[in-house]
Amino acid sequence: MERSFKLLLDGLQPYLNELASAAPAPGGGAAAAVTVAQGLALLSMVCNLTIGKKRFSAVEDQAKEILEQVSSMQAEALSGAEADMDAFTVVMQAYQMPAETSEQKSTRKATLADATRNAAEPPFRLMALTARALPLANQLEKIGNPNVLSDVFVGRHLLIAGYRSSKENVEVNLNSLPPDDAFVSEMRAKMSGLAAGVPGE
Amino acid sequence: MERSFKLLLDGLQPYLNELASAAPAPGGGAAAAVTVAQGLALLSMVCNLTIGKKRFSAVEDQAKEILEQVSSMQAEALSGAEADMDAFTVVMQAYQMPAETSEQKSTRKATLADATRNAAEPPFRLMALTARALPLANQLEKIGNPNVLSDVFVGRHLLIAGYRSSKENVEVNLNSLPPDDAFVSEMRAKMSGLAAGVPGE
Repeated sequence: MERSFKLLLDGLQPYLNELASAAPAPGGGAAAAVTVAQGLALLSMVCNLTIGKKRFSAVEDQAKEILEQVSSMQAEALSGAEADMDAFTVVMQAYQMPAETSEQKSTRKATLADATRNAAEPPFRLMALTARALPLANQLEKIGNPNVLSDVFVGRHLLIAGYRSSKENVEVNLNSLPPDDAFVSEMRAKMSGLAAGVPGE
Repeated sequence: MERSFKLLLDGLQPYLNELASAAPAPGGGAAAAVTVAQGLALLSMVCNLTIGKKRFSAVEDQAKEILEQVSSMQAEALSGAEADMDAFTVVMQAYQMPAETSEQKSTRKATLADATRNAAEPPFRLMALTARALPLANQLEKIGNPNVLSDVFVGRHLLIAGYRSSKENVEVNLNSLPPDDAFVSEMRAKMSGLAAGVPGE
């Protein structure tokens, strides 16, 4: 048992090393997604410790329904992390474009703006996913196995941190676009639409 | 590049699968520690993107000092996660002890209380570590490479979530001890001593 815990944690080291390295990706985008994936995994655990137990049979169907949703969201968060890193790489490449002639400058500017708008999408999708996940944590707080209630609470803290983190990651892209870009105002409107269900937002 | 991102994330899957499974460990304790480790890794990244650059030479020594501290804290958070899972396993074992005779009952009760007090220590150490790490994030916000400022913010969100999560993990242990246990009041006093430097606490 001890040995397998150590192995599980050792398996995280390559990711953490890359996160800590001077390579700008993986960075905050991946960290936000992995945090959300962990929060969702904890909610799955609580469902798995509720389902199939006689004393929770009245909520069995609800727990199964939540499990299905959080499992699929977990996969979505991780595939979003890949999309995030890929989109970020495209932004980095656009920064490297030549900017000597005025034609080069204008091509670079347009390419960079496109890449930046694209790079705002994966963290926005993670924000939206987290806003959909939080009500499931609240539901599980009421119906889940009370022996693992603290895991629901930890899961919720991680989801909220994932929401706030992905918001920073959207903002950093929006802030590097011209303020009169229609995409910026559309995105900000969509973001404030999500805040209602998030504690402290 | 793309391929290696996918590999890094695939490497997290065994851990996430165990977290999501019905096995109660790894659970909230490990998730809190891994979240803190990610937050610290992001702060390391920001240091690594500040150190060695001419335009940040005035803060080079400070960034190196922060890097040394956050790296060592990252290792500490992960070894704490192992201690947390091991201590939790001992609690689970104590619950399995026979409780038929009154002697067995009293032995089980004492063993369980001991194991529970021990299990409160690793999450408390993680809380304390996080409280020490937050001022480093604040310092880095001022002196770090501004191109990766959003990574400092994400790092801070993750540290705060790690603090709140480890607090839940201490509380769940304290709440299962007799309220007049001296350990409970000592622990709560030490916990409130940490809250001052944590936003929103």
